[in-house]
Amino acid sequence: MTAHNPSLTLVAGGAGFIGSHLCAELLARGEHVVCLDNLQTARPSNLRVLESHPNFTFIEGDIVNPLPGEIVALSDRFTRIYNLACAASPPQYQADPEHTMLTCVVGTDHLLRLSESSGARFLLTSTSEVYGDPEVHPQREGYRGFVNCTGPRACYDEGKRAAEAMTFDFARMGRAAVRVARIFNTYGPHMHPDDGRVVSNLICQILAGRKVTIYGDGNQTRSFCYVSDMVDGLIRLMESDADGLEPTNLGNPEERTLNELLDEILAVIGGPVAIDYLPLPVDDPRRRRPDIARAQEQLGWQPRVPLAEGLARTCAWFAEEIGAPDFENRLKVAAE
Amino acid sequence: MTAHNPSLTLVAGGAGFIGSHLCAELLARGEHVVCLDNLQTARPSNLRVLESHPNFTFIEGDIVNPLPGEIVALSDRFTRIYNLACAASPPQYQADPEHTMLTCVVGTDHLLRLSESSGARFLLTSTSEVYGDPEVHPQREGYRGFVNCTGPRACYDEGKRAAEAMTFDFARMGRAAVRVARIFNTYGPHMHPDDGRVVSNLICQILAGRKVTIYGDGNQTRSFCYVSDMVDGLIRLMESDADGLEPTNLGNPEERTLNELLDEILAVIGGPVAIDYLPLPVDDPRRRRPDIARAQEQLGWQPRVPLAEGLARTCAWFAEEIGAPDFENRLKVAAE
Repeated sequence: MTAHNPSLTLVAGGAGFIGSHLCAELLARGEHVVCLDNLQTARPSNLRVLESHPNFTFIEGDIVNPLPGEIVALSDRFTRIYNLACAASPPQYQADPEHTMLTCVVGTDHLLRLSESSGARFLLTSTSEVYGDPEVHPQREGYRGFVNCTGPRACYDEGKRAAEAMTFDFARMGRAAVRVARIFNTYGPHMHPDDGRVVSNLICQILAGRKVTIYGDGNQTRSFCYVSDMVDGLIRLMESDADGLEPTNLGNPEERTLNELLDEILAVIGGPVAIDYLPLPVDDPRRRRPDIARAQEQLGWQPRVPLAEGLARTCAWFAEEIGAPDFENRLKVAAE
Repeated sequence: MTAHNPSLTLVAGGAGFIGSHLCAELLARGEHVVCLDNLQTARPSNLRVLESHPNFTFIEGDIVNPLPGEIVALSDRFTRIYNLACAASPPQYQADPEHTMLTCVVGTDHLLRLSESSGARFLLTSTSEVYGDPEVHPQREGYRGFVNCTGPRACYDEGKRAAEAMTFDFARMGRAAVRVARIFNTYGPHMHPDDGRVVSNLICQILAGRKVTIYGDGNQTRSFCYVSDMVDGLIRLMESDADGLEPTNLGNPEERTLNELLDEILAVIGGPVAIDYLPLPVDDPRRRRPDIARAQEQLGWQPRVPLAEGLARTCAWFAEEIGAPDFENRLKVAAE
């Protein structure tokens, strides 16, 4: 590669929540990044920050369709391909379940074929949703999961399981060098205020002075990983020698009930708030916590940002993003 | 519909093992049948018998690709669409796992879109493989399965789970009226002698005077449904009012170990034989038996052909198909 033709990293879904942080980190490390995104769930401001960087190229396109000519023209230069392209919150991925499934399967196939032709290493971001509503706790990578393949979450859960199957088949057939990350709940700046995920929901409701919504009794658990930790894990996995036929959990093993999460957020922003307890959605998992032994051992990785610190950064970002005028005052109240 | 433009039934995969029996039965009932098949695993002779029927039309095509123009041109006339198109035995579906996955997901999507535009009722043939290596026995439709989504069987197992998800999403969105059958092991004439399934394997090996191959110790179980029973179940399901969001198991609940199956075949053809016990393939299920309470209740269906009778018909057909000259003599020996 000459200086005029540096090798490139493709980030599909690079304008989304985790994708935009990944692009920024790769750029900070000196990589040349091409972002392919259909802007379905991306926030335009995520992209604006990136586009000011000289080594960043944005190409609009949907991986469900044949890859854009600009991507094909660059294919010899790709050495890394990250696939983060898929709507990831239930209201978003259920709005067009056919598209969600095709994004997972056909989109992943298109990117795997690009990896095959370019010789680039491929990383699929799969999800803890492949474990469904788990009966084993915490979840290790060998656990086969408890997924309802006929329900309203199946377009995403089964789509990702199918994407994993296809990715490992490319590896088994010697067609591509692959990595698969199973991402657990992740939070931080650049989340969409309306994406329906619990951290953004709660923070935005509190900042707006509205009632907060808890689905179920709030005793179901999740494990929340701050986005900078997740991005660090993804890059370590991509660059690791872990070229096997096994996925790697990435997530924070510190488990919290949703009620505890609410308390932690209120400790940052200040309360009190009224709570609306609504019925639990169909197939909503009751517990979710990663076993990260494999990531610790293979990647030397574990989350470093404590929940309180991550939530403080996230609340501050949302306060600016949605314009919560009295946020500074409420911070003071909470600190007193 | 006039006599010149009768309504049509589309059978994707209609030249395959079960598909060819389904086409023959639909023709016998007076339907006009269009068969779409890529001839990947079909036996040409399956098709030759059908093509002599005046109400049968064959169109060669792969449902992975956009549907052929001839199909699109007929779309207003379809009232029933059966999707049986997919390689179903491990050696066949593992030869090109990417194509297997795309057949399940993209192929099913193409046919669902045809159902949507034509208003035809859609039936997906799913599989007992969605239960994986089951921990619950027998398997009811509500059981979520125990499938390894990273293994060499996943292209088929997860492909079918994804196809189910997509099919029920079309129903949930009001885009198509759907039925989903989960087919358990089925056997009978028109199986491919080399498809690697246990019934055809054993029969052909014995008829050829070769050693028979048993994978594992032969104590794993399967439940074998004769193909005429399966076809009857598929048509009943298609024509039933069971327009819900639930799949229906179709299979024979009489469970046999593979060693017992071998004994039953030897009782038809005559023995003795030498047996090669080979290692069990990865992720091979240990037990498999359908709970058919739903089919019994909703469809008034249950298998009628006893295993001995079905095996006798199947052995006679294979003897002619592969040309086993001393089959009649061996039958006599077995009967003595």
